[in-house]
Amino acid sequence: MSGMPFTPGTLFGVGVGPGDPELMTLKAVRTIGACPVVAYFCKRGTRGQARRIADQAIAPDQIELPMVYPVTVELPPNHPDYGRQIEAFFDESAEHIAGHLAAGRSVAALNEGDPFFYGSFMHLFLRLSGRFPTEVIPGVTSMVCSASLLPRPLMLRDDVLSVIPGTLDEAALLRALTGADACVVMKLGQNLPKVRRAIAAAGLAGRAWYVERASMEEQRVMPFLEAPDSAPYFSQIVIPGEGKRG
Amino acid sequence: MSGMPFTPGTLFGVGVGPGDPELMTLKAVRTIGACPVVAYFCKRGTRGQARRIADQAIAPDQIELPMVYPVTVELPPNHPDYGRQIEAFFDESAEHIAGHLAAGRSVAALNEGDPFFYGSFMHLFLRLSGRFPTEVIPGVTSMVCSASLLPRPLMLRDDVLSVIPGTLDEAALLRALTGADACVVMKLGQNLPKVRRAIAAAGLAGRAWYVERASMEEQRVMPFLEAPDSAPYFSQIVIPGEGKRG
Repeated sequence: MSGMPFTPGTLFGVGVGPGDPELMTLKAVRTIGACPVVAYFCKRGTRGQARRIADQAIAPDQIELPMVYPVTVELPPNHPDYGRQIEAFFDESAEHIAGHLAAGRSVAALNEGDPFFYGSFMHLFLRLSGRFPTEVIPGVTSMVCSASLLPRPLMLRDDVLSVIPGTLDEAALLRALTGADACVVMKLGQNLPKVRRAIAAAGLAGRAWYVERASMEEQRVMPFLEAPDSAPYFSQIVIPGEGKRG
Repeated sequence: MSGMPFTPGTLFGVGVGPGDPELMTLKAVRTIGACPVVAYFCKRGTRGQARRIADQAIAPDQIELPMVYPVTVELPPNHPDYGRQIEAFFDESAEHIAGHLAAGRSVAALNEGDPFFYGSFMHLFLRLSGRFPTEVIPGVTSMVCSASLLPRPLMLRDDVLSVIPGTLDEAALLRALTGADACVVMKLGQNLPKVRRAIAAAGLAGRAWYVERASMEEQRVMPFLEAPDSAPYFSQIVIPGEGKRG
């Protein structure tokens, strides 16, 4: 490995939890503080949720590497240019990080929730884990945080849990909802109307809860039947299990 | 509420994470330290995993309330006396806690992983949350901790995740495994042979990993095809998704 004068740095994918900075783990706080470089995805004009959550763990002498989503990805995800542009952005972001790692500087890549639970860290992991030492620090998922606000346990006894992305088409949503005991539908946003129809078709609307921005200041929790017509991406539908005995 | 001279205490169900004390959240550590009473389930002769994980967060002047599973629950779970004896034990444990709460003392009930993710805290929650202020502090699940040790993200893109208790019968296991993209089978222990047959029947053996005691000193990770013939309860089978696009 010529051009790599030092032992390479380690890439840490750090789960910073669902929103409340107190839901970071001790290990996340220590790891962020120990890395010379802190990287995070964000939209133009913001530092993003992950950076906000980790704020108290970052010192002024650390190098910050914001990875700003290009405006061009505001194309609809099914547009032919979307995939190409976003992949190029992830490639470029990974190369910035690789530069630090190759120079011996470890990088804490912040990830809301848990890095391997639909986390944006996957884009870096898939590009860099074969080239540099990589460690994933697990975090509290928004899923269990949302469930913690409800009047029933998410799963008990022999309940099966299905975790379902709202991005699926309506038929696939219905298939995934059917037969599960406990369900969580994530990635709502503009998928909410479609998800609402699938939940009604599966006969689950009466057992479902709507949770928005769990553990953040603007947190909202309500029965799904009272949920608003539009939902932010940081919202979920949670259907607690009924404690099946297998 | 006569006989309740003070404002009642709050029952906190505290997720202490999968095993490494550093995977406790800042909120778990603070909450445990702020409660005059710390309660935890354990087997006779041990203080149990949850108490071990939380050790550094507990001060000598706190009241400890070990809730020791009765020897009699070593009956097989399908024995007619098992259910009755274990329910009586949970009733009695809840009443001990209720005594402290009614006297104005808040109680931190420790729970490995997350309290609502198959957590033992449910036995207290179902008995006490209607009578006393109750708050659940979410934690890092053993599931995401196990997944963090693997060379692939657990879920990405439009993957559906199924979380399956190994206690299901073989036909139900096979149904739950079929059609999921990512799967985690929990509660292995003596269920391993049955789970192994169901995973083979579902054609998933080649993609599956076996993780034992994730984040603990004795942690073991291996391809499922190389897994041992017997597994402790604190072990899981993790099948990462393949990044389906819905």
